[in-house]
Amino acid sequence: MTKHIPNRLYISEEELPKHWYNLRAVMKNKPAPMLHPGTLKPVTAEDLDAVFCKECIEQELDETTQHVPIPEGILEFYKAYRPAPLIRAYFLEKALETPAEIYYKHEGTNTSGSHKLNSAAAQTFYAKQDGLTSLTTETGAGQWGSAMAMACAYFGLDLTVYMVKISAEQKPYRKALMETYGAKLIPSPSNTTEAGKHILEKMPDTNGSLGCAISEAIEKAVKTPKCRYVLGSVLNHVLLHQSIIGVECKIAFDKYGIKPDIIIGCAGGGSNLGGLIAPFMGEKLQGKSDVKIIAVEPASCPSFTRGKFAYDFGDTAQTTPLIKMYTMGSGYIPPAHHAGGLRYHGMNSTLSQLYHDKLMEARTAIQTDVFDAAIKFAKIEGILPAPESSHAIKVAIDEALECKRTGEKKTILFGLTGTGYFDMSAYMQYNAKTMSDHVPTDEELEQGFASLPAVK
Amino acid sequence: MTKHIPNRLYISEEELPKHWYNLRAVMKNKPAPMLHPGTLKPVTAEDLDAVFCKECIEQELDETTQHVPIPEGILEFYKAYRPAPLIRAYFLEKALETPAEIYYKHEGTNTSGSHKLNSAAAQTFYAKQDGLTSLTTETGAGQWGSAMAMACAYFGLDLTVYMVKISAEQKPYRKALMETYGAKLIPSPSNTTEAGKHILEKMPDTNGSLGCAISEAIEKAVKTPKCRYVLGSVLNHVLLHQSIIGVECKIAFDKYGIKPDIIIGCAGGGSNLGGLIAPFMGEKLQGKSDVKIIAVEPASCPSFTRGKFAYDFGDTAQTTPLIKMYTMGSGYIPPAHHAGGLRYHGMNSTLSQLYHDKLMEARTAIQTDVFDAAIKFAKIEGILPAPESSHAIKVAIDEALECKRTGEKKTILFGLTGTGYFDMSAYMQYNAKTMSDHVPTDEELEQGFASLPAVK
Repeated sequence: MTKHIPNRLYISEEELPKHWYNLRAVMKNKPAPMLHPGTLKPVTAEDLDAVFCKECIEQELDETTQHVPIPEGILEFYKAYRPAPLIRAYFLEKALETPAEIYYKHEGTNTSGSHKLNSAAAQTFYAKQDGLTSLTTETGAGQWGSAMAMACAYFGLDLTVYMVKISAEQKPYRKALMETYGAKLIPSPSNTTEAGKHILEKMPDTNGSLGCAISEAIEKAVKTPKCRYVLGSVLNHVLLHQSIIGVECKIAFDKYGIKPDIIIGCAGGGSNLGGLIAPFMGEKLQGKSDVKIIAVEPASCPSFTRGKFAYDFGDTAQTTPLIKMYTMGSGYIPPAHHAGGLRYHGMNSTLSQLYHDKLMEARTAIQTDVFDAAIKFAKIEGILPAPESSHAIKVAIDEALECKRTGEKKTILFGLTGTGYFDMSAYMQYNAKTMSDHVPTDEELEQGFASLPAVK
Repeated sequence: MTKHIPNRLYISEEELPKHWYNLRAVMKNKPAPMLHPGTLKPVTAEDLDAVFCKECIEQELDETTQHVPIPEGILEFYKAYRPAPLIRAYFLEKALETPAEIYYKHEGTNTSGSHKLNSAAAQTFYAKQDGLTSLTTETGAGQWGSAMAMACAYFGLDLTVYMVKISAEQKPYRKALMETYGAKLIPSPSNTTEAGKHILEKMPDTNGSLGCAISEAIEKAVKTPKCRYVLGSVLNHVLLHQSIIGVECKIAFDKYGIKPDIIIGCAGGGSNLGGLIAPFMGEKLQGKSDVKIIAVEPASCPSFTRGKFAYDFGDTAQTTPLIKMYTMGSGYIPPAHHAGGLRYHGMNSTLSQLYHDKLMEARTAIQTDVFDAAIKFAKIEGILPAPESSHAIKVAIDEALECKRTGEKKTILFGLTGTGYFDMSAYMQYNAKTMSDHVPTDEELEQGFASLPAVK
């Protein structure tokens, strides 16, 4: 217990996890089933077959296997960039003069720049296994698209990415990165799909949204032979793949005799948060721990804290199965000033159920506070964080300062989901003091809720 | 010897080097001394005192201490991002179908994106120790400036960076990164110095050059109280700090029983190459190894392969001490199409002497070949390399293919100096097939040589 904790908590290649952690297997209150939008009955594997890869569908529907073996071909890929560094924030602790011990899992050291690669690798591997030749997806901030471009280059599949229009304009280098890896980029909404045309007719000046890009990518996948669609968050098989984050943390913590008191993750669709907390929440559900878990979401897109727990569509065109989740409504589009990711209207169903059951908390942060924290962190810890990750940093600092106030020596873990290398335009806005905050009014939220389907 | 080699060769925090390796201490033919430009006598510590920090001057002049202890304050900083990953390129080997074993040291995982941070940390620590409050420097591609911005944020010093004008224009995000870390950026040539004004009068449309930015930064440092100048390459104390790269490789290789047959590094001013090879060249000089060492330079700026071994100034304004080195002449400006770093007119004096004594080889590469290699590497190994690093990748691939031809199982190590995150505009040029190659004619080189001083 009094072991010296190095700056980076090491686990070797041999100690890398061989299994993902399926949190649903240990939940008593399982998330509500996905419903077929036509029949309103729980979806079957066949229902999803036209859209997703086979193994991903099985994983999506599997609520009983707790430890899911990671195939050798994926482990092989993981070895190229994992374990992701688990870092003791000695510099930050000192700067904050806090008795708290702070750790963060840094998922931004791979070229895609974020944790998204963990699921991109898995989904692309399964697509290859199914004999597919191409995939489609969407990307907002660009992290998921970059991860998919890398995975497809490695496994040898073609990739079409529908990129939210405003992101494609604001982030030419993100686009260039994906194109360098061989992906085809289409700003969304576009004229290449019926869904895109329909939205362009209704709203010719729209900035686009994730929900709309999803509609386009699904339509394209369904209409293309030997092609399927992949999603980077929200779904349970994505969270399963991302559990590698939490399992690695757990292995390293156990090695050094560390037990976290608080775990903090940013939350958009929930992929990082769900992955980070998986084994720790598992222990909590089994009564072995009372770790406090905090989701942090942008004030611009507050699905946990101000959304409704309801069945909703995953996309704007309302073509996907219905998911029971905390949601702003699939018609919700976050304010244009919002700089980073975390702009999806809904939240993963497992996390939604856990939040509903009060097994975790949620907080919002406004973006200037988030960038304040980001720059403080960058200067102190030497890592320029992505805006998404900085939501978690903001609350980790808050919690560490609370420890300073109370004198408690708590152990805090947060997820550093990615680097800010491709978010320099947002940093430039912040540096130029032209970044604005807008917390949606209740009226603005009502517009989103109006798009909710009438399903109980 | 038959130990399994993991993808990443691990050394622990406790195994991190405690000493830098001073290659000059084991050289029989020492590099020629720096000369005072007025007296043409070897410079003394006093001569350099107005420009550099005290400890850096001592290190610059120290040719006898082989193992130089790294101060605790610098070790502390190094622990935040070191050891840098030493990676076995299993994927690349497989793709090339080569019997060669390929390793690379990846210095691009820290936020500054390159190896430059190793010396930035050291020089800033010493500046702080001298009681200085600010530093000046120059940057070309932006890696050194970014590293200095991070180091100054950490140690609490002000920083002014003269950034080569064309780089500042082509790389707004590099600029933003440095500004985010609190540095003041000035495109060079500028009106803030006499040297800058002079060059602007003569060449109002100039793109700027490193030599010119150096002149401005030195002038600014000398005229500012409690301020000194720092340089990111060329000088011997910089190579000393960068030896951490090679020493870490050596520790890891020794642990796994690996002996490199070929070491490949890109070469601009020589900071990465000199650091990477230090302990290995040391063994070679001591007759303990016959490792082949290859410097790779851009065909646009070929100081080793087409330059002269002569005394030359370090800057365009011809204010610095004279250095005996392979040089294009301080008046040489590489063609504007040249996309990456490695554009300095001269080469570190130690490396120049070693090259002159035929202890290492040098090759040039044209930039489209370099980007071919970069993209191949990115798709196979999953890391988007900096254009600079890609010069080494190009030759590593050449050597691995030569092994395939001959059937030899050689062990190759190359230096991956940094990431390409901030070089996306160059990648975009390459993707759009608008990237051009220009190999300077002999006449163009003569223009540079005409600026050489008449010193033997």
